[in-house]
Amino acid sequence: MKAQLFNEISMDLTRVEADLLQVVSTQDQTLADIGTHLLKAGGKRLRPALFLLAAKTHTYDFTRLLPVAVALELIHMATLVHDDVIDEAQTRRGFTTANTKWGNLTAVLAGDCLFAQSFATISHIADPRIIGTLSQLVSYMCAGEIIQTANTYNVFQTEEDYLARIEKKTANFIAGACELGTYMSAAPETFINAMRDYGHCLGMAFQITDDILDVVASDAQIGKTAGNDLKQGIMTLPIIYALHNSPDRDELCELIGRREMQALDLVKGLEIIRATDAVDYAYGLVNRYIQRSKERISVVRDHALRDSFSRIADFVGQRTY
Amino acid sequence: MKAQLFNEISMDLTRVEADLLQVVSTQDQTLADIGTHLLKAGGKRLRPALFLLAAKTHTYDFTRLLPVAVALELIHMATLVHDDVIDEAQTRRGFTTANTKWGNLTAVLAGDCLFAQSFATISHIADPRIIGTLSQLVSYMCAGEIIQTANTYNVFQTEEDYLARIEKKTANFIAGACELGTYMSAAPETFINAMRDYGHCLGMAFQITDDILDVVASDAQIGKTAGNDLKQGIMTLPIIYALHNSPDRDELCELIGRREMQALDLVKGLEIIRATDAVDYAYGLVNRYIQRSKERISVVRDHALRDSFSRIADFVGQRTY
Repeated sequence: MKAQLFNEISMDLTRVEADLLQVVSTQDQTLADIGTHLLKAGGKRLRPALFLLAAKTHTYDFTRLLPVAVALELIHMATLVHDDVIDEAQTRRGFTTANTKWGNLTAVLAGDCLFAQSFATISHIADPRIIGTLSQLVSYMCAGEIIQTANTYNVFQTEEDYLARIEKKTANFIAGACELGTYMSAAPETFINAMRDYGHCLGMAFQITDDILDVVASDAQIGKTAGNDLKQGIMTLPIIYALHNSPDRDELCELIGRREMQALDLVKGLEIIRATDAVDYAYGLVNRYIQRSKERISVVRDHALRDSFSRIADFVGQRTY
Repeated sequence: MKAQLFNEISMDLTRVEADLLQVVSTQDQTLADIGTHLLKAGGKRLRPALFLLAAKTHTYDFTRLLPVAVALELIHMATLVHDDVIDEAQTRRGFTTANTKWGNLTAVLAGDCLFAQSFATISHIADPRIIGTLSQLVSYMCAGEIIQTANTYNVFQTEEDYLARIEKKTANFIAGACELGTYMSAAPETFINAMRDYGHCLGMAFQITDDILDVVASDAQIGKTAGNDLKQGIMTLPIIYALHNSPDRDELCELIGRREMQALDLVKGLEIIRATDAVDYAYGLVNRYIQRSKERISVVRDHALRDSFSRIADFVGQRTY
């Protein structure tokens, strides 16, 4: 994520990065290697960044916030590692995945350990809401992923199914990061709810954009193989739209039904989707979520901070990687 | 585990069971199905039982203890689900494993969710030591499993390597259950340490017995395929002993080196191990751990309770399933 988006907290994000490296380094050698590899592969650090920014709205106590920021990214890293095992992904952000480099078994265990480390990091904070929110967002994500796994190659999914799924899988986490940040800054409950909604809309827009990019972007742009969702039978919004609206929907349906899609099938499938206005339609929905997210941050009094939230929303709606 | 071993807490264990069922039932349908299946498959509930018994030594407040007892078993269930994915196990305790019934991907996610649920269960307890101990024991277990995975088919492992690995993988968890129980009963720190040691010795004996059973027991007795460790290249104490002491150690080494062991190879491998005094040697070590565990419980003043701990230790040393 472009650094200038997080001007207000860039120094603190550097400290989060240092602490992340320290947490993953203090374990067994293989775990340390995997953790360091994952951190080097980078990432947007969107969750800790939004968490810290949200805390800037009221009382900002970085020492208290730091372990929660670290825990949020550790949880995110854990889910990415397990996602890559599940998707059999070879690369992420242009880097070899843990499952490719260390094997599925070790990757599963490394993910488990990252989960455990995230809870260890916040164990000294005796606040039920923090640990409750963090553990519930993990449960939600798993439920979302399980629904996704159970519905691969299911061409009868609707847009509603899709939205319910990505809410669990992605939006609830980003909403939780915003909620916890404002909560820990001692904001009033109505304010916390507004920021939670902001995060929710942002998360929805983020995931839809991700799913659009899988259809339109080149491999190099997104750092992983394009068309991966289609190949894996994950019915994203553009695919669902095309399945309902393309003149070639029967062919698309048949291609997906083959399950073991060959390279040429994949090219054909992507062509069918791109030939519809699926991408425009999906971007339309992204824009509505971005719009709604901006409405929710009207509660933020500080102009500079509100601008930051607004620019992050614009960035999420326009990103090409 | 034989019910009469836990007489003092049998009613409370029934309540733990009911709460476990409730926790796993309140999720998405697939998750609920998996959770219920895992609970039905039974198990010894050794960790919550030891935790509760340990709490009986001082102030026993079941309402406070219940969520931690539930969390301990949820963590254990999560690791079993992931272990079965990793070991490609078909059955456990005579029941089909989650990975066989729902596939690896869903089993990985279900395990993640059980981890999350365990932390959600204790989120209202604002006590750093409890969440710290629970998260650290998960980290330890993962590290132990990773070391095990990294060393499959490694015939150069020593007894020391093995003991260090099972300490991380198994003993630390049972020690943690005993530690937390006494800690939550407001026992003095020296007493907590003694009970932690008791759990540690019990855990070591438990894992060595498990590894012996994999060599000597029939499939029906242990509810899973015998010789599984040998087949998977997991170098347990009897295997390590035979590799050092059998006149046929070169043949055993060669069989393990094949990696894809056929049924006849497996029979031959088990024969070589059983022909040595590996099993006697391993039981000797079990007995020393059982002995040491009993010495540690001399701190328990209540005779009936001390007898319970003692009988559990004897049971662990003599169990055949």
